[in-house]
Amino acid sequence: MPVVTMIGGGQLARMTHQAAIALGQCLRVLASSETDPAAQVSAEVVIGSHDDLDDLRRAAAGANALTFDHEGVPLDHLVALENEGVTVLPPSKALRFAQDKLAMRTRLSELGLPVPDFVDLSGDPAAARERLRDFGARHGWQIVLKAVRGGYDGRGVWLLDDEQQALTVFDGADDATRLMAEAKVSMRRELSALIARSPFGQGAAWPVVETIQRHGQCAVVLAPAPDLPAEVAEAAQQMALRLADELGAVGVMAMELFETTDGELVVNELAMRPHNSGHWTMDGAVTSQFEQHLRAVLDYPLGATDVLAGPVVMANVLGAGEAPAMSMDERVHHLMGRMPQARIHLYGKAERPDRKIGHVNIVGTPGASIADVRERAELAATWLSTAVWTDGWDAHDD
Amino acid sequence: MPVVTMIGGGQLARMTHQAAIALGQCLRVLASSETDPAAQVSAEVVIGSHDDLDDLRRAAAGANALTFDHEGVPLDHLVALENEGVTVLPPSKALRFAQDKLAMRTRLSELGLPVPDFVDLSGDPAAARERLRDFGARHGWQIVLKAVRGGYDGRGVWLLDDEQQALTVFDGADDATRLMAEAKVSMRRELSALIARSPFGQGAAWPVVETIQRHGQCAVVLAPAPDLPAEVAEAAQQMALRLADELGAVGVMAMELFETTDGELVVNELAMRPHNSGHWTMDGAVTSQFEQHLRAVLDYPLGATDVLAGPVVMANVLGAGEAPAMSMDERVHHLMGRMPQARIHLYGKAERPDRKIGHVNIVGTPGASIADVRERAELAATWLSTAVWTDGWDAHDD
Repeated sequence: MPVVTMIGGGQLARMTHQAAIALGQCLRVLASSETDPAAQVSAEVVIGSHDDLDDLRRAAAGANALTFDHEGVPLDHLVALENEGVTVLPPSKALRFAQDKLAMRTRLSELGLPVPDFVDLSGDPAAARERLRDFGARHGWQIVLKAVRGGYDGRGVWLLDDEQQALTVFDGADDATRLMAEAKVSMRRELSALIARSPFGQGAAWPVVETIQRHGQCAVVLAPAPDLPAEVAEAAQQMALRLADELGAVGVMAMELFETTDGELVVNELAMRPHNSGHWTMDGAVTSQFEQHLRAVLDYPLGATDVLAGPVVMANVLGAGEAPAMSMDERVHHLMGRMPQARIHLYGKAERPDRKIGHVNIVGTPGASIADVRERAELAATWLSTAVWTDGWDAHDD
Repeated sequence: MPVVTMIGGGQLARMTHQAAIALGQCLRVLASSETDPAAQVSAEVVIGSHDDLDDLRRAAAGANALTFDHEGVPLDHLVALENEGVTVLPPSKALRFAQDKLAMRTRLSELGLPVPDFVDLSGDPAAARERLRDFGARHGWQIVLKAVRGGYDGRGVWLLDDEQQALTVFDGADDATRLMAEAKVSMRRELSALIARSPFGQGAAWPVVETIQRHGQCAVVLAPAPDLPAEVAEAAQQMALRLADELGAVGVMAMELFETTDGELVVNELAMRPHNSGHWTMDGAVTSQFEQHLRAVLDYPLGATDVLAGPVVMANVLGAGEAPAMSMDERVHHLMGRMPQARIHLYGKAERPDRKIGHVNIVGTPGASIADVRERAELAATWLSTAVWTDGWDAHDD
């Protein structure tokens, strides 16, 4: 059977390995340490750095495809690997749009896809500062500053309300950090269109979901997005599929969108890998995003993306603060006792406050109310995160 | 998080590892070689023999529980480990009934559970031969000879029709093989009641399924068993739960049953581990048998056993004969192309004719006809087994 190498030993690689096992495979991971989430559970671990070309070569040797659980690999290294005959998927020519927000915004504009107004703040600082002042004034300083590269889960993004704040962030930025600014979008909610594309060009789209962010990171996902008009959902899927095709992306791709107060769609972010907004598929869709990613990078036909039963809600589990009242093992024990329907996914990560260390999926029965399913999912995840039931129910009443 | 050790590196351990990953664990396996199905995919592999007490000790060191993917571990070794403080689950006192068919039959009779008439053919050969002749005559030679230990997948079982056949098998048996005889049951079909029990005594039962055997091994499972009266299904579940309780079994337990032509239930076999008749739970139930087994041996509360969507059919994939027309990878490719709903599970085993090397699950939509679901599952599994579509559709028409 074929061998896929994934660069990065995080939770996405860990869950991709689960999917690989079913396909008769073992996922090879390039991990920075043996304690990385995926390195704890896979039999094929290469220890090394994604910044080191020789480490990447070692991880790629003999594999049928090389893919990623993050966007951090230097593009030059990927081009070098491609020139040496490694099957890098998504290819460097596509991946650069997921690594570089400015390139992404520019390309999307060229393709006529809806993006917020934006401006490049890289290059000569004095000139860039002037562009920022013009741009901010034009948008009444309702703008967002972003690092062009490397930001995620709220890092590298600054939401601003006035000129003073904006200039303080701009002036305080590291010289090496390229910045851009975007107009804030007047939004109703955030959506995610998750699709997959194979090298052959087959596309597959899961139902569009609603994502709820807290402290800049994904906290809850409602699948499918409730009360989303069918034509809007289809438009989002078509945009994502078209973009993947235009860019030559391969694998799973998440297009994060704003639904504006006017009911329009605006593209926010792009990820070319399995994505937090797709974790619900592990228990609630015919094919999970992790299996689909493997199918795509191996140029297998893609799996069905239908919802398996009723609506699904995913809620992230965050690390507790210092000295939690109960160990994670005890918290799991209590949750299982109270909620035998909860599907628990833990990543094998040490706890730190607000660090994503797992998620819970609740799969509703066909016809179930998504509000009820959400209530249970949030209750479960809050419990695993904090050992506190949000409905006032105390574990000691158990 | 806790560590579970599983003795045996076969497909059951491989699939238990998939479940362990979600619970933040890594399954430690005692495998005979690094190419065993589970050893290919787990980061914690102890190479050794299940017959060697020191190897068992090495595998058990520091683990929270020791469990099994087969019934082959010598009981004396398990008693020794228990005396050394190892948490062996199921415990030796229960496991012996899964290892020894005669002890199982005897215990079930004592408990008043329905078993076929049987006779012990061990001990002095001349006397045993006489008992066989009496027993055979009494049942018109419609009897089955069985090895008391070690038989599975049709091995160690001889279906007989006359005295001549019976005496030939009896006389030809190895001196070390203890035999027993059972009356053939006039049966409508075979069922399996899959349950789990925790040390605390919590029980959970999945819907009773119908199993279809070919060449003495499980070929197809229909979940839930079609047209099974609710009271019969419940009686089967209650028998299995009661037996697990009486024996002190812990973990998943499969009770294989005959439904007689009179609509009665008769117990056939017993397995105290995840079982082929429960593979459908991986895609079609809220909690899979593999996660449930881990929950049980860790004394976690058990998960929900409800069907997730519609009816589910599992079909086993068998190894092709010599020089198959297509590699397994090509067969997988074609199947995915034709049947994007099929859930494929491959075990990483070399192909040999009629060797179980994987299975396919098809999960029906709610309300789907189980006959339709079965047709697709059998088509998929036959294709993966033989590269031939049973409906006459040829791959080259693709």
